[in-house]
Amino acid sequence: MAMQVPIALSNRHLHVSKEDLEVLFGEGYELTKLKDLKQPGQYAAEEKVDLVGPKGSIKGVRVLGPTRSKTQIEISFADSFVLGVKPPVRDSGDLTESPGVKIIGPKGEAVLDEGVIAAARHIHMTPGDAEKLNLKDKDTVKVRTGGERSVVFENVLVRVNENYALEMHVDMEEGNGAGVINNQLVEIIAE
Amino acid sequence: MAMQVPIALSNRHLHVSKEDLEVLFGEGYELTKLKDLKQPGQYAAEEKVDLVGPKGSIKGVRVLGPTRSKTQIEISFADSFVLGVKPPVRDSGDLTESPGVKIIGPKGEAVLDEGVIAAARHIHMTPGDAEKLNLKDKDTVKVRTGGERSVVFENVLVRVNENYALEMHVDMEEGNGAGVINNQLVEIIAE
Repeated sequence: MAMQVPIALSNRHLHVSKEDLEVLFGEGYELTKLKDLKQPGQYAAEEKVDLVGPKGSIKGVRVLGPTRSKTQIEISFADSFVLGVKPPVRDSGDLTESPGVKIIGPKGEAVLDEGVIAAARHIHMTPGDAEKLNLKDKDTVKVRTGGERSVVFENVLVRVNENYALEMHVDMEEGNGAGVINNQLVEIIAE
Repeated sequence: MAMQVPIALSNRHLHVSKEDLEVLFGEGYELTKLKDLKQPGQYAAEEKVDLVGPKGSIKGVRVLGPTRSKTQIEISFADSFVLGVKPPVRDSGDLTESPGVKIIGPKGEAVLDEGVIAAARHIHMTPGDAEKLNLKDKDTVKVRTGGERSVVFENVLVRVNENYALEMHVDMEEGNGAGVINNQLVEIIAE
């Protein structure tokens, strides 16, 4: 079993609920699309916010759209040291017992009780991709990056959905530490 | 073959030549030890400088002592994007065709033609450690970190010297991307 997939490095970002969007940007506010992401329907918005934790703050964090049912902030470990929070490594949407943070927008502030995670490295794929690879949703695989800074990422979560496009996601530190750049091909290897 | 070694995450830092130290801090200046590092004779100095690249600057970068024959600046890939330079991944001391940078100290500025690298991940060990592991200076090995963010680092350079202490060095992004902390044990695995 060997299959190459393009990798993408996620910078810190957040997904916002409709309620928090209105608190931060004003009543009835809607996100403005800056550019489409590779995952169908997902986009980088023009909107940015500031994050404030117990130890420090990070300015200009990009919002991704569309809005979701719950606000979710995805940061790197380096970011977590700046803010002074301890995010768990989690699959998107799993916010149980994650720390909160204060979000500052141009029209207001939202103080969250939870929502800050370090995204678990994962691969989006269609059911067709999964069948070829003999994989199913929630499986884990290993992925080798190659090159002089090559690493084998272990515990890579497989996410299967017919609305996905084949793409591996890591955060900026994972990607830089492995010396990879956006759209570089990496290889799924036998578990 | 399996041996556990403690890992250490290196933040951005620089080693300075005696000449550059005097340019930056004044004639006859000597470094002040802040704390000893694990490698015998090496220490974090109290002194900090600013780095200025074509695109941006990074303030408060720590100097390590003692002085060396050539000034060497070790930064992460994230730092390189901030500064706007492209450091090669290199073993310490190998500065050929590395980019330069401007260094600003309290008493002067040094404009370097070369010296900026991303340190190649490596393991310091004594000849006794090397013998136990059937390794020699300049060999490369693989190292598995374990844990939920486990990676296998490939192309890990082995550095053998009787003045070394057994310790693996990675930069902050490599370490955070693997979810490891200082002094955590990681495992050398068969190449």
